[in-house]
Amino acid sequence: MDYRGIFEDAVDALRAEKRYRVFADLERIAGSFPRARYRDDADNAREITIWCSNDYLGMGQHEKVVRAMQEAAGTMGVGAGGTRNISGTNRPLVELERSLADLHRKEAALVFTSGFVSNEASISTIARLLPNCMIFSDQLNHASMIQGVRQSGMEKKIFRHNDVAHLRELLSQVDRKRPKLIVFESVYSMDGDIAPIKEICDLAEEFGALTYIDEVHAVGMYGPRGGGIAEREGLMDRIDVIEGTLAKGFGVMGGYIAANRSIIDAVRSYAPEFIFTTALPPALCAAARTSIEHLKGNGHERVMHQRQARLTKAILADAGLPVMETATHIVPLIVGDARAVKAASDMLLDKHNIYIQPINYPTVPRGTERLRITPTPLHTDEMIFELRHALVSVWTSLELPREKADAAITASKLTSGDLTLPNLGG
Amino acid sequence: MDYRGIFEDAVDALRAEKRYRVFADLERIAGSFPRARYRDDADNAREITIWCSNDYLGMGQHEKVVRAMQEAAGTMGVGAGGTRNISGTNRPLVELERSLADLHRKEAALVFTSGFVSNEASISTIARLLPNCMIFSDQLNHASMIQGVRQSGMEKKIFRHNDVAHLRELLSQVDRKRPKLIVFESVYSMDGDIAPIKEICDLAEEFGALTYIDEVHAVGMYGPRGGGIAEREGLMDRIDVIEGTLAKGFGVMGGYIAANRSIIDAVRSYAPEFIFTTALPPALCAAARTSIEHLKGNGHERVMHQRQARLTKAILADAGLPVMETATHIVPLIVGDARAVKAASDMLLDKHNIYIQPINYPTVPRGTERLRITPTPLHTDEMIFELRHALVSVWTSLELPREKADAAITASKLTSGDLTLPNLGG
Repeated sequence: MDYRGIFEDAVDALRAEKRYRVFADLERIAGSFPRARYRDDADNAREITIWCSNDYLGMGQHEKVVRAMQEAAGTMGVGAGGTRNISGTNRPLVELERSLADLHRKEAALVFTSGFVSNEASISTIARLLPNCMIFSDQLNHASMIQGVRQSGMEKKIFRHNDVAHLRELLSQVDRKRPKLIVFESVYSMDGDIAPIKEICDLAEEFGALTYIDEVHAVGMYGPRGGGIAEREGLMDRIDVIEGTLAKGFGVMGGYIAANRSIIDAVRSYAPEFIFTTALPPALCAAARTSIEHLKGNGHERVMHQRQARLTKAILADAGLPVMETATHIVPLIVGDARAVKAASDMLLDKHNIYIQPINYPTVPRGTERLRITPTPLHTDEMIFELRHALVSVWTSLELPREKADAAITASKLTSGDLTLPNLGG
Repeated sequence: MDYRGIFEDAVDALRAEKRYRVFADLERIAGSFPRARYRDDADNAREITIWCSNDYLGMGQHEKVVRAMQEAAGTMGVGAGGTRNISGTNRPLVELERSLADLHRKEAALVFTSGFVSNEASISTIARLLPNCMIFSDQLNHASMIQGVRQSGMEKKIFRHNDVAHLRELLSQVDRKRPKLIVFESVYSMDGDIAPIKEICDLAEEFGALTYIDEVHAVGMYGPRGGGIAEREGLMDRIDVIEGTLAKGFGVMGGYIAANRSIIDAVRSYAPEFIFTTALPPALCAAARTSIEHLKGNGHERVMHQRQARLTKAILADAGLPVMETATHIVPLIVGDARAVKAASDMLLDKHNIYIQPINYPTVPRGTERLRITPTPLHTDEMIFELRHALVSVWTSLELPREKADAAITASKLTSGDLTLPNLGG
C-alpha cells in the first residue's frame, strides 16, 4: 500500500488549485507591533509590516499584559499540570472565568484552549443535552460551529446568511414543543458584516429557542467595556450563550463561553473536549485577564482601532482599490481568483515588505478569493499611506480587477453544496 | 421550554451517581512544586501537597523553562496573533516543531493546542484521506482518539486491550488491499500498563497497515532522550505517526504529531481543527522547546522519577494498601466505588493536606474507581512517608478494601457497551 503516495496526491491537488498554503515564518517584535522579522526559505531575515493580524488591538504586546504573563510564570510556573479535574484548575484561571462572566454580565464562564474547541465542545454538548434538539445555523458560520453542529448528531436547518425572514420560515416549520438552538456570529470575519442580533433574539423569544452567538471578532473591540456587538446594542441579556476568544482582541490565546450557571455546569460536566484537556496555564490566564480588565476600563484602543480602520478604508477606496464596504474593522479587498491573490500577496511581501496572506476556498467561497486587511490602533497613518502605495503598485503590475464588491457577494456566490464545509475542507 | 431545568437535571444525574466533579482551586508555587496553595469554598487558603499532577517531571517550574517563557514574552509578546496561515506562524513555533521532529527522528512535526485536538484532528484527517480506510482501535484508547475515529466517519474495529491475537484476527478479516490504520497508546494512563508495540508493528507490517501511537504519558519520561516507550524499545522508526503532548512530561501545554513529511503536510493542509485555530504563542513554544531540549540531554529527571515511583509503590504496598502493579510511574489505588473514592479524596485533603482527585466513570470503568497517584522527581522520600501515613489512616477510617488489583481488572470490567464512550461521556 503506497500510503505516502496517497498523502502526496492529496496535497498535490491543493497545489494544482493554487490553494496550497505556505506559512510565513514571522518573529513578532514586542514594542514595535505591527512590525515583525520575516524569514524566507533561505532563512534570510528582514523586517516587514503585518497587515493581517488577528491581534486586532495589539494587546499581545501591551506592557501590562506582558508583565502579567512574566510574573505569573515566575510565581506559578509555565503549565497548569493537569486537566481541570486532575489538579489543573489554577487560581488565575478561576479569576479569568470570573472576569469573563462579569464582562458579559452572565452568571458564569468556562475557558477552553481555543475558540475552535469552545464552539465544537459547547454547541455539540448543549444540543445533545436537549432531547431531539433542532439546530438553526447561519449559512456562513465558522468551521468550528459547523463542526459542533455536526458532532452533536442533531438535526439542523441552515438559514441564509443574516436572513431573518428565512430563519422565521424555518423556525415556524418545527414543532413548538421541540427544543431549538439558534447559532450565529456577531461579526463575520471574512466580509466584516454584522448579524441582525435583535431580530434573531425576537424570533428566539417568539419560537422559544436558545440563542448561541460567536463574538470572537468583536470581544474587546465593541461595546463600552469590550463585551462585543451584543454589549454595544444592549442585547447581552437576551443571548443565552456568548462565545468569545482570548486570542484576537485580547491578544493571548484560548476560547470561552459565558452563560447562566446551569449551562456552564452542564458543558463543564459533559463535554469530552473540555474534560480531557489540560487547563490553560496560569501565566496565560493572568495575561488574558489583565488584557480584558484593561479593555473593560479603557476605550482608547477601541477608539483608535475604529479610527485607523475608517482611515484605511477611505484611503484605499480613494486610490481606486476595490474595498468591500463593511461596518467593522475588517477591510476585504476582493481579487476573485486563487492564483492572482497568491501572486498579489507574494509581490507585497517581496517588493514592499508588507505581509497580507491570501484567503482562499474553503475559508471563503470560490470566486471571492481576497486580501483581508486588519488595521490596528498601532498601524500609523504613515503605514496606511505606505500600504496604499504598495497595493496600487501591485494592482497595476498584476492588472487586478478594480470593481467594488459588497458583502452580499459572498452569500450570493455560495451554492447549496457550500452550505456545509466539505469533509476535507478547512 | 424549561431549558434551565433540562441542564440542571443532566447535572443532577451526575450528582446522584456521585460523579459530579468539583474542581480544586489550586495555586502552584514555582520553586516548591509539588506544594500548592489550595482555596476552599470559603476562599480560605492553605498549603497542600499535590500527588496527582500530570506535570510528571516538575518541568513546569524548571528555572530554565520559566526563564524561556519570560524572555520570549518580553521580546515577542504574549500571543501569536493569528492562525498558522494568518500571520500566526511564529519563529519559536517553527523551532519547536524542528525539535520535536528531531526528538522522534521523523522528517517533520506539527503542533496543536492540546493533545486532545492533536488526536482528534490527526486521526480523523489521516483516516479520511485514505479511501475506504478501516481503523483498528484499542479498546482502552483515550476519549480524544475515540473522537478522532468517530469523526473520520470511517469503519472501525475495536481490539481487546493490548491483545495482539485479537488484533491479528481482526486484521485478517479485512481485504488486504484496503487501507488500514492501527491506533493505540504506549502507556495507558489509568492502569499504567504498556502496549506490545513491537508485536503491533510486526502485524502492521504483515498486513500493510499504518501505525499511530499516542505517547502522551511517556514523552519526556522514557527513552534515552525522552522520546517515549517507542524510543526506549528502539521502535520509533517502525511507527508511522507518534503523537505526544507538551503538557505532561514537558510541563507546558499543547499537543503534536511527528511523522514523515507527506503525512504532516496532509494533516496541516486538511485538518479544520488545525487550520482554524490560533497558533501557540511564542512564549509557550520557547518554554516547551527548552524543556524538550533539556530532557533530551539530561537523564537526571527520568532517573529520579523512576526511583520515586518505585519507592512509592513499595512503601504503599508494604503498608497493606491495594497498589495496582504497573510497569510505569503511574500508581493506581483501586477503591471500586464512586462514593467511597470521593470520601477518601475529601478526607485526604481535609485532614492530611494531600490532594489526589477521585477518578470515576467514564474515565475508568464502573467498579474500578480509584485514586491515581503520580510521584514526581520532586516528591521527597519524606513526602512519600507522609502519603503512606495519610492513606493508611483514610483506609482505616473509611474501611476501604485492601485486596490488590492488577491491570487486567480494568479490561475485564469492561462490557461491550463500554467499547466506545457514550455520547455524553467524558
